[in-house]
Amino acid sequence: MSWNTFGRVLRMTTWGESHGPALGAVVDGCPPGLALSETDVQPFLDARKPGQNKFTTQRQEADLVRILSGTFEGKTTGTPISLMIENTDQRSKDYSEIAQAYRPGHADYAYDAKYGLRDYRGGGRSSARETAARVAAGAVARLVIPEVNIVAYVAEIGGDAIDPADFDANEIGNNPFWCPDAKAAARWEGLVDEARKAGSSLGAVVECVATRVPAGWGAPIYAKLDADLAAAMMGINAVKGIEIGDGFGAARLSGEQNADPMRAGADGPEFTANHAGGIAGGISTGQPVVCRVAFKPTSSILTPVDSITRDGANTQVRTKGRHDPCVGIRGTPVVEAMMALVLADHKLLHRAQCG
Amino acid sequence: MSWNTFGRVLRMTTWGESHGPALGAVVDGCPPGLALSETDVQPFLDARKPGQNKFTTQRQEADLVRILSGTFEGKTTGTPISLMIENTDQRSKDYSEIAQAYRPGHADYAYDAKYGLRDYRGGGRSSARETAARVAAGAVARLVIPEVNIVAYVAEIGGDAIDPADFDANEIGNNPFWCPDAKAAARWEGLVDEARKAGSSLGAVVECVATRVPAGWGAPIYAKLDADLAAAMMGINAVKGIEIGDGFGAARLSGEQNADPMRAGADGPEFTANHAGGIAGGISTGQPVVCRVAFKPTSSILTPVDSITRDGANTQVRTKGRHDPCVGIRGTPVVEAMMALVLADHKLLHRAQCG
Amino acid sequence: MSWNTFGRVLRMTTWGESHGPALGAVVDGCPPGLALSETDVQPFLDARKPGQNKFTTQRQEADLVRILSGTFEGKTTGTPISLMIENTDQRSKDYSEIAQAYRPGHADYAYDAKYGLRDYRGGGRSSARETAARVAAGAVARLVIPEVNIVAYVAEIGGDAIDPADFDANEIGNNPFWCPDAKAAARWEGLVDEARKAGSSLGAVVECVATRVPAGWGAPIYAKLDADLAAAMMGINAVKGIEIGDGFGAARLSGEQNADPMRAGADGPEFTANHAGGIAGGISTGQPVVCRVAFKPTSSILTPVDSITRDGANTQVRTKGRHDPCVGIRGTPVVEAMMALVLADHKLLHRAQCG
Amino acid sequence: MSWNTFGRVLRMTTWGESHGPALGAVVDGCPPGLALSETDVQPFLDARKPGQNKFTTQRQEADLVRILSGTFEGKTTGTPISLMIENTDQRSKDYSEIAQAYRPGHADYAYDAKYGLRDYRGGGRSSARETAARVAAGAVARLVIPEVNIVAYVAEIGGDAIDPADFDANEIGNNPFWCPDAKAAARWEGLVDEARKAGSSLGAVVECVATRVPAGWGAPIYAKLDADLAAAMMGINAVKGIEIGDGFGAARLSGEQNADPMRAGADGPEFTANHAGGIAGGISTGQPVVCRVAFKPTSSILTPVDSITRDGANTQVRTKGRHDPCVGIRGTPVVEAMMALVLADHKLLHRAQCG
Repeated sequence: MSWNTFGRVLRMTTWGESHGPALGAVVDGCPPGLALSETDVQPFLDARKPGQNKFTTQRQEADLVRILSGTFEGKTTGTPISLMIENTDQRSKDYSEIAQAYRPGHADYAYDAKYGLRDYRGGGRSSARETAARVAAGAVARLVIPEVNIVAYVAEIGGDAIDPADFDANEIGNNPFWCPDAKAAARWEGLVDEARKAGSSLGAVVECVATRVPAGWGAPIYAKLDADLAAAMMGINAVKGIEIGDGFGAARLSGEQNADPMRAGADGPEFTANHAGGIAGGISTGQPVVCRVAFKPTSSILTPVDSITRDGANTQVRTKGRHDPCVGIRGTPVVEAMMALVLADHKLLHRAQCG
Repeated sequence: MSWNTFGRVLRMTTWGESHGPALGAVVDGCPPGLALSETDVQPFLDARKPGQNKFTTQRQEADLVRILSGTFEGKTTGTPISLMIENTDQRSKDYSEIAQAYRPGHADYAYDAKYGLRDYRGGGRSSARETAARVAAGAVARLVIPEVNIVAYVAEIGGDAIDPADFDANEIGNNPFWCPDAKAAARWEGLVDEARKAGSSLGAVVECVATRVPAGWGAPIYAKLDADLAAAMMGINAVKGIEIGDGFGAARLSGEQNADPMRAGADGPEFTANHAGGIAGGISTGQPVVCRVAFKPTSSILTPVDSITRDGANTQVRTKGRHDPCVGIRGTPVVEAMMALVLADHKLLHRAQCG
Repeated sequence: MSWNTFGRVLRMTTWGESHGPALGAVVDGCPPGLALSETDVQPFLDARKPGQNKFTTQRQEADLVRILSGTFEGKTTGTPISLMIENTDQRSKDYSEIAQAYRPGHADYAYDAKYGLRDYRGGGRSSARETAARVAAGAVARLVIPEVNIVAYVAEIGGDAIDPADFDANEIGNNPFWCPDAKAAARWEGLVDEARKAGSSLGAVVECVATRVPAGWGAPIYAKLDADLAAAMMGINAVKGIEIGDGFGAARLSGEQNADPMRAGADGPEFTANHAGGIAGGISTGQPVVCRVAFKPTSSILTPVDSITRDGANTQVRTKGRHDPCVGIRGTPVVEAMMALVLADHKLLHRAQCG
Repeated sequence: MSWNTFGRVLRMTTWGESHGPALGAVVDGCPPGLALSETDVQPFLDARKPGQNKFTTQRQEADLVRILSGTFEGKTTGTPISLMIENTDQRSKDYSEIAQAYRPGHADYAYDAKYGLRDYRGGGRSSARETAARVAAGAVARLVIPEVNIVAYVAEIGGDAIDPADFDANEIGNNPFWCPDAKAAARWEGLVDEARKAGSSLGAVVECVATRVPAGWGAPIYAKLDADLAAAMMGINAVKGIEIGDGFGAARLSGEQNADPMRAGADGPEFTANHAGGIAGGISTGQPVVCRVAFKPTSSILTPVDSITRDGANTQVRTKGRHDPCVGIRGTPVVEAMMALVLADHKLLHRAQCG
């Protein structure tokens, strides 16, 4: 099935293709009375939008959002919020060659195998442009959880990681990589530019930290907070891995090393470590919720790769056109949005059951 | 909310606590006419059940399953299949001390924070005993996808990984670790036994491969096959990370290295690499579906760890009683079960939309 | 699909066949901390159970409920509550003849057309025995809405209606018909007994009134309180119609006649009429929620009716065995249960969104 | 919660207010490869649109639909179909008085009680304008079930019913009432016009018949075809009752009278009566699926009705502005749309489980 709705009680339904007239999201279940206008949403779309520097695709999209429903006199009314973004820079000619051949690493073949036809212009529905709708919906979700602070950043590009000792949250907005380590950012300039010039691409690891999440959010057994985060992140285009807390690193620790001891604190329990990433038994513990997300390198590269045509003949595909040399960079605001959507949904779920 | 149902059209609802009279699963949406009796389910429960050797918890449970509904004259009828497993070895005395203090790494504190009360006997609902219900349901799911073959195995314990060069699928059942590498299995005997004797614990990485999955299963955008797998795996007790295909490794590859080229084959498209783990755009490609799952070390250890009591006083907790020194081992059949449940659900979803 | 779960955040999943070993319900999403034991559930099952007088089927079932999970020390824990009722009086011989022929008015043919096979013993899953599970779950739902009072009663049997002038709520428990009108109850004794002796059957109309429902429960647009009630009631075996408030009668009123005027009252708005049945725009108004439910006559009758065999040959079917001469009578506690489940679900939904 | 999605695998999410810039529906789960353009949808919107004659509201809306996503080269692609209708005739001045006072019979008070604020312009989200989105989505659903024929008509206005002896399906489109009885249509001209001139309103009963529905669609126990139809119809603005087949009439029949005998036919089973309205045990039998839907009289009337202000003071409300004297008339295409959505969803559900 097509399944374009995310969330349980705060639900986002997205629609739209890369080269259609518009794309959008309908956010349902939002609490009433929250101040909401386009200016609450636009900054997040601006953070994600393409064409801002040479390290991202040169497609030019204003990504201006319109709120078509669900607010009245500047406040949410509790009815569905329809967010629409028009597509303006749809150079279909860039994509005409791929109508017949499958781009390796893209969803072209899989969509054809499933549906028997596909909108091949820019990947159609499988294009990362869909994530603009997520970012818009995520901006609404943030309003539902004003108590929470969410920050995502790129922790690694092409295997070159930030140095935790040089972590400075204030640096994140100072470079085109959402990089919290000024030195790493400087290195990445060369790294990404080199890949871009070579028509190659690089993978990335994005980390996301949500602080001030109250203890008690999450829903055992099959809507665990970490399970929902895993689905949320793995569903982002190009993502191939997700870790909570120490993640795969925890598999290499002993029980003693991995323990998160607790102490009585002035304002309730305090933890002296956070290997768990703020989640135990699928429920938040009050510690920062921490996840890491692996983005593969952009599949669109200039180097020819063996492929086949729709008719089953051998061919080679090299993807011209405008592409992100490292899709993980622009994935960073998307990771934040998905974190916000999951947390907001669980806040409402929690109060449904526990008042 | 409590949310104890998994799946979209093939749905499993599980219930039961570690020390209650029984636990079970209701499997809804199963196609009619499939041959099903307890003997189709029991072998999978036997593979998971505790007390089989010194490398797993010494709790003795027969884990005998009864089918209470949904079959008639040995066949599924299309109505819900109720599977029940009685608990028989519930030594509540082992757990009486933890009624007041929170075991670090366990869900004790999180459950209390959420619900205000908890069944502290053996972790109650948060106990890994719940996974017996998943394994039983997974056995039913397998009947829905007879075309698919699913194998999971332990690829790494305590940081000691198998050697791919020594991979032998026939070895998996020959040792107590579901290890496909005889040499690694020999090493792990010492490793795990040492941890067990020390009252310590080890993490593990489990890999799961599903072959002969047809191209076209999966559901963009928010029920992608990989997103559903991520939720399925991350929701297993003690899991902290999940990768599809190359996973985090893909983040360190260039686009050229990560490409999965295609060639025309005798029976349709063939791929000459599988970095993607058999999924593109959330839809299966016909290649083997491959994932890796990180299990943290068992949180129950003999070494005292700082903690607090329900009343907020500092204390220390050392977990006596019967525990798995490496919970990832017994997690292996659970990983298989979750893979089966996700794939079976998506098979039915696919035919709903695409006939 | 089979779809055996009801509710959105308070969810009931039922399972079981008429002649299987047991049937049950799993109630998920129940708030924690509610006092719950079998004695809270059993009285409602006793009200529904068969064999209590000559006006209901003579099948003898103790309908004893066991709570298998979800409570600890007498309180709900927020985890799924598994309720099981064993079948004890399964006279399969009574039903052996219908293995080959379709009973008119029953689901026999429809199940075969859908599933290709069916459990023909007592109707299998389509038997009204399934409603025992609903009644058990409904008893749990009542604990979620202690502020609400729910009463259902039979308002009409075989076209013979109660006289509103003789309505006395205290009478409802004084006769075997849940009849609030003593005179009507006396008439129905003869009416129903006559039908019973003749091997015939009668239809009934059941009314249900929920008082003290706060204004504001309900969920526009596609989970309206009245829409959910309609689904809940129409899904009960033998139900063919559902009205809210004046229902079909409202279609014959003018706008002036149908108006529900409001006046300022001591404790908030007061209405001087309730044609709407307590719901406007799918949301409760604070007035009593009122619905009427039409039960068809029991399809099992002694008079032979034309039918066909599984092989497509003409035959006639007369249904021997034990049957309710008026299934609407025992449907009354089921109507109450469904009302409770819908209201409890909407209470939790409301507080999810609106706090 | 707000809950603006309808359907299980074929899902419609609607959004929009009476006086916002636009309204729309996102249809998700539609099979790929169906020919779809605006011209497939517009005729159904034209049938519902206001201002076509003096018997409906004089609001002038072109109700032109745009398809913003989900099709490519004139065919559905299996991705979500976004349908948008702009509002053009939003005379907000007509509604300015009701900002402070609750219109009796409308959702004004209920929305305020639930959300604490409301878009009072034309009823906001609770306006029947929302049904335009349903009709658009229903047009897509029809493409999913080309084998089925759906017809709805008005069977009764203000208590004046059609004569079954004069039923002529060809008449339905010949009068402004969707009336299949020419004589009744002539009578209704006077009846409705009188109500209109008096600023009064009338209720109506709409019948809907779906023929050629295959046996086997439907989903026991909690997604029965009749239960889903009941929810679908009861959720339409102004609907207060729903019957399947004989409905409440069945409650007055004996079991003999209500039986639907079967005979072997040339092309499978034939029924010699259809009291059941084509559904048994929640599953279609292959007979026509028949339902009746009761619409209350339009709540907006010129006669002053007692009411209160938001501040709790007594007042009186008379609703000026443009309104349908009998909302059931324009409800007829909406009933058809909901029937189409339910049947299409169940067609896909059935093939998910049963292939």
